[in-house]
Amino acid sequence: MYLEKIENVNDIKKIEPEHYQELAQEIRQFLIDKISVTGGHLGSNLGAVELTMALHLALDLPEDKIIWDVGHQSYTHKILTGRKEGFDTLRQFHGMSGFPKHRESCCDAFDTGHSSTSISAGLGLVMARDLQGKENTIVSVIGDGSLTGGMAYEALNNASKLESNFIVILNDNNMSISENVGGVSKYLNNIRTADSYLDLKEGIYNALLGSDTGNHVIKGIRRLKSSLKTLVIPGMFFEDMGITYLGPVDGHDIQAMIHVIHAAQRVEGPVLIHAITKKGKGYGPAERHPARFHGTDPFDPATGKLLHPKTEPGYTDVFSRTLCALGEERKDLVAITAAMPDGTGLKRFGNLYPDRCFDVGIAEEHAVTFAAGLAAGGLKPVVAVYSSFLQRAYDQIIHDVCLQNLPVVFAVDRAGLVGSDGETHQGIFDFTYLSGIPNMHICAPKNRWELQEMLRFAVDFDGPIALRYPRGTAYGGLAEFRQPIALGKAEWIYHETEIALLAVGSMVKEAEKVRELLIAAGHRASILNARFVKPIDEEALAEACREHTLIVTMEENVACGGYGEKVLESMNRQGFHNRFLQICLPDAYIEHGNEEILKKELGLDAEGVFQRILEALA
Amino acid sequence: MYLEKIENVNDIKKIEPEHYQELAQEIRQFLIDKISVTGGHLGSNLGAVELTMALHLALDLPEDKIIWDVGHQSYTHKILTGRKEGFDTLRQFHGMSGFPKHRESCCDAFDTGHSSTSISAGLGLVMARDLQGKENTIVSVIGDGSLTGGMAYEALNNASKLESNFIVILNDNNMSISENVGGVSKYLNNIRTADSYLDLKEGIYNALLGSDTGNHVIKGIRRLKSSLKTLVIPGMFFEDMGITYLGPVDGHDIQAMIHVIHAAQRVEGPVLIHAITKKGKGYGPAERHPARFHGTDPFDPATGKLLHPKTEPGYTDVFSRTLCALGEERKDLVAITAAMPDGTGLKRFGNLYPDRCFDVGIAEEHAVTFAAGLAAGGLKPVVAVYSSFLQRAYDQIIHDVCLQNLPVVFAVDRAGLVGSDGETHQGIFDFTYLSGIPNMHICAPKNRWELQEMLRFAVDFDGPIALRYPRGTAYGGLAEFRQPIALGKAEWIYHETEIALLAVGSMVKEAEKVRELLIAAGHRASILNARFVKPIDEEALAEACREHTLIVTMEENVACGGYGEKVLESMNRQGFHNRFLQICLPDAYIEHGNEEILKKELGLDAEGVFQRILEALA
Repeated sequence: MYLEKIENVNDIKKIEPEHYQELAQEIRQFLIDKISVTGGHLGSNLGAVELTMALHLALDLPEDKIIWDVGHQSYTHKILTGRKEGFDTLRQFHGMSGFPKHRESCCDAFDTGHSSTSISAGLGLVMARDLQGKENTIVSVIGDGSLTGGMAYEALNNASKLESNFIVILNDNNMSISENVGGVSKYLNNIRTADSYLDLKEGIYNALLGSDTGNHVIKGIRRLKSSLKTLVIPGMFFEDMGITYLGPVDGHDIQAMIHVIHAAQRVEGPVLIHAITKKGKGYGPAERHPARFHGTDPFDPATGKLLHPKTEPGYTDVFSRTLCALGEERKDLVAITAAMPDGTGLKRFGNLYPDRCFDVGIAEEHAVTFAAGLAAGGLKPVVAVYSSFLQRAYDQIIHDVCLQNLPVVFAVDRAGLVGSDGETHQGIFDFTYLSGIPNMHICAPKNRWELQEMLRFAVDFDGPIALRYPRGTAYGGLAEFRQPIALGKAEWIYHETEIALLAVGSMVKEAEKVRELLIAAGHRASILNARFVKPIDEEALAEACREHTLIVTMEENVACGGYGEKVLESMNRQGFHNRFLQICLPDAYIEHGNEEILKKELGLDAEGVFQRILEALA
Repeated sequence: MYLEKIENVNDIKKIEPEHYQELAQEIRQFLIDKISVTGGHLGSNLGAVELTMALHLALDLPEDKIIWDVGHQSYTHKILTGRKEGFDTLRQFHGMSGFPKHRESCCDAFDTGHSSTSISAGLGLVMARDLQGKENTIVSVIGDGSLTGGMAYEALNNASKLESNFIVILNDNNMSISENVGGVSKYLNNIRTADSYLDLKEGIYNALLGSDTGNHVIKGIRRLKSSLKTLVIPGMFFEDMGITYLGPVDGHDIQAMIHVIHAAQRVEGPVLIHAITKKGKGYGPAERHPARFHGTDPFDPATGKLLHPKTEPGYTDVFSRTLCALGEERKDLVAITAAMPDGTGLKRFGNLYPDRCFDVGIAEEHAVTFAAGLAAGGLKPVVAVYSSFLQRAYDQIIHDVCLQNLPVVFAVDRAGLVGSDGETHQGIFDFTYLSGIPNMHICAPKNRWELQEMLRFAVDFDGPIALRYPRGTAYGGLAEFRQPIALGKAEWIYHETEIALLAVGSMVKEAEKVRELLIAAGHRASILNARFVKPIDEEALAEACREHTLIVTMEENVACGGYGEKVLESMNRQGFHNRFLQICLPDAYIEHGNEEILKKELGLDAEGVFQRILEALA
């Protein structure tokens, strides 16, 4: 039992090399055991076990820095830095995060969560190191998927210009790459990472630098080297950018990885190590179904089957099925995802209408402007995207979609609290950033029926429109309230006096419970289903103000630029001075944890809202 | 006089080829004559004259589509599409825009303004064309600078996957490229764009496709071709992505350009034409000082000298000088620009402290996360950026800077109305998108002294902070009001009764004039210089509410999430129900034109605000 010996950072260095494989196996089993209970990211972590061990063996943490792109593959890193116990509370409220967090450990050099940030952050740490005269090693670990994000390219471009010592490890688990890993590649790889090669290169360069002739010769050598390489290995892309390419190397071969990391440390300037790994490595079900085990709920380790399979459809399912039906009716309907066909539910649409479904890679900026182009060309694009990832395309929505008033539908999934992914993934800013944009329209459904109808409305609407719905089960209640969707029109669910609950989307369900508590306490309360956050229904609001003393808005968004502020602004403009209470999320990042617990903690659950209302009435 | 014959689109096709050069010269002279009077973008337009003529000669507009990246190089395109007369009102209120606008002409296929969007938009038009069974040609024209933006790479990556017919013209005016344009390159270029080459390529591929052996041979050919090419021409980057590379070609040789465009039309799949041009071509002063003539105010065509040289320092100058002084005091101070060292005023800092100044290229996303890395590494980064371009890095501010509460200073220039660049460049959303972000702080100076003091405050502040200032002359008035800057504290300028003008940044100056009008009309008015938009000064607000009947907020930002909504929210929370008037920008894109005219048009000038106040008092 070697894992027992790992209590803190660098303990791994006490393990004898001949036991590395056993330790890797124990870590793998530990991950399967723990994640099968708590849920979490499995596939990417199983794929990064040896790569992480090699980094910890080759580097000196915490002086040396590792930046984990996306970050959900950092579980082994957490184990090796004294956080084994954290796995019992993984992704739970007040428990260990599923992503790197500097506040958890000084070995987490930079917090991550979204894709393609690690090279930029790493390069910042590199330049800070150089300006402070330090000499530690800085490594960014990025997946081949994350490399499709434009930011990664911007950072590589900049790294090449700055020419400082910097190691980027490309953790490549794409099957299509593996065919290049042949005998000749391995051979060349050995030559290129060997000391003799590096010495030779440095030697030639130093000897030739400084004279015009020399510079010409260097260029010639570079070209020859490049043209030779191109014949057998796929590193030209990086070398063209001025980044030394080492690889490909087997990312599951710990000694080879240690060797190549040490070689990279000796290269002057930026280096890219191309490591080939297998997602889900060592666990059959995860190797066979990488998408299913990317992020998983608790499962039976023996079979890989979910312990609590979903019985109710989620909002994503409802969106998915409705879009397919609309795709049958409208041949001009096209759908766009940024590398999330499973998560956003577009896979079904893509299977039915492959020509009309576009997976553009992890590239939200491009996704949105591409959609604008599709709309300008006469089609009706639906961009299916998570709320927190759409933040990436804020300027493209302003500059390419809304400026030209193009009819792009944004299906904004995972809006509001998202639970166990935590801070980086909460979808709590979309009302703010979207509703400040001219020509934009925003709606949010109260239940599964309304999502269907709103999607139909949005697809028929001639302008930019965002449809915002949460993670999880699609609410099936309030099924009898089926007033047709009309632009900027709210829907009265209960229409009484005293207290008006103006609730948006997911909060309508909560408002029902609040109303019951209020009635039990001897009050009367109405519920207005806002439906539209932009434009808001000013007539219904006026009606609410005339008939009630207290106006309460309820939304899963921060206060700034949210529904509540719009209501208050309209009340002021219309001359209403009712008492007003704004229930929304705090001006703070919200940690991971079960949504129900988070809502309670933040005072957004029925009991919390009820108490706030009693205070406001007092 | 051939230019006289150009009255509408395709009129250029009536000109005999032997007169193309004369027409090019007339266009060039026309541009110099007109822009020297109105101001505008000169250098990039002079560089694109022949390239644009070739496109118009080779294509059939408006069926074929041209998307101009950034768009300020589209002047010749405007001339050739019947808009010569527009140049008398170029960039003036209700006059012709300096950017492509679909509402001006159906030949403007897609509106642009920000960098690196054209390939994404073009690819959208391409896929819409294909799905509708059309066969027109779609061309995106992108500069080498814009190609450093990650979005362009995301789009190329996607274009390569989709494999549809699509032409990207790389308009390359970077001097460092020209050394590659040697005799061998030209020779190979001729071979590669000739019919025989294309026929050969298609023929081989078709013959070999479909068998395993054939596929291996294709791969072998691709490799051999690639390795050969690498020896002499710089197109590998694109070919590696699966995009056929044609070039380099002289972008000032109209016949060569027509030839290569026609060749590109015959290639299956995406093609990149690499055209070499010279910025400022044909006008000595612009060739010698490309940065000076990128965008210029009116000048004397004979000498190139500005007709009305600036006498007063602008806010950018004040920022620039203050930052240099701070850089002397603090050795940990570093500065970052995304390809705008001149525009943002960082050039001076870069000259003084070259190791501490980073120009990362047109790459706002990377710029911000790079800054976060610098801050995490212990330095104090200042990101100098225009308000509308910072929109690009919205997620990076949320996810990489503010989540970790890193002390990055955002020097947000060109905030508020920017004048003649118009819709795409107005900096009118920054209060909205920045103040919704937890941990962010926002301030705005009333005059040039306050900018200096606020920058000093921001650099000393231990957290994310944005300092927002407008384009143009730094206000020198109110010089006697020099209360020290304190976090979240506003400053009373005049403290009376009846009407409280709560003004932000540039609007403080306007509030002075409003106050004079109010006094002349028999009213009393106070002015509170807000200084901070996040957090707002709730104590000063309470004071204002207790002592005045009408509260007026004044800001150059849209209503949603702006200063006014924050004030109203706080008033409600503190239990104040004063009459409240919110002066801000409308929920609309704002066209180009002189800032004073725009302010008047939008009711943000003193007279307009005064009238709105009289109405509110009535």
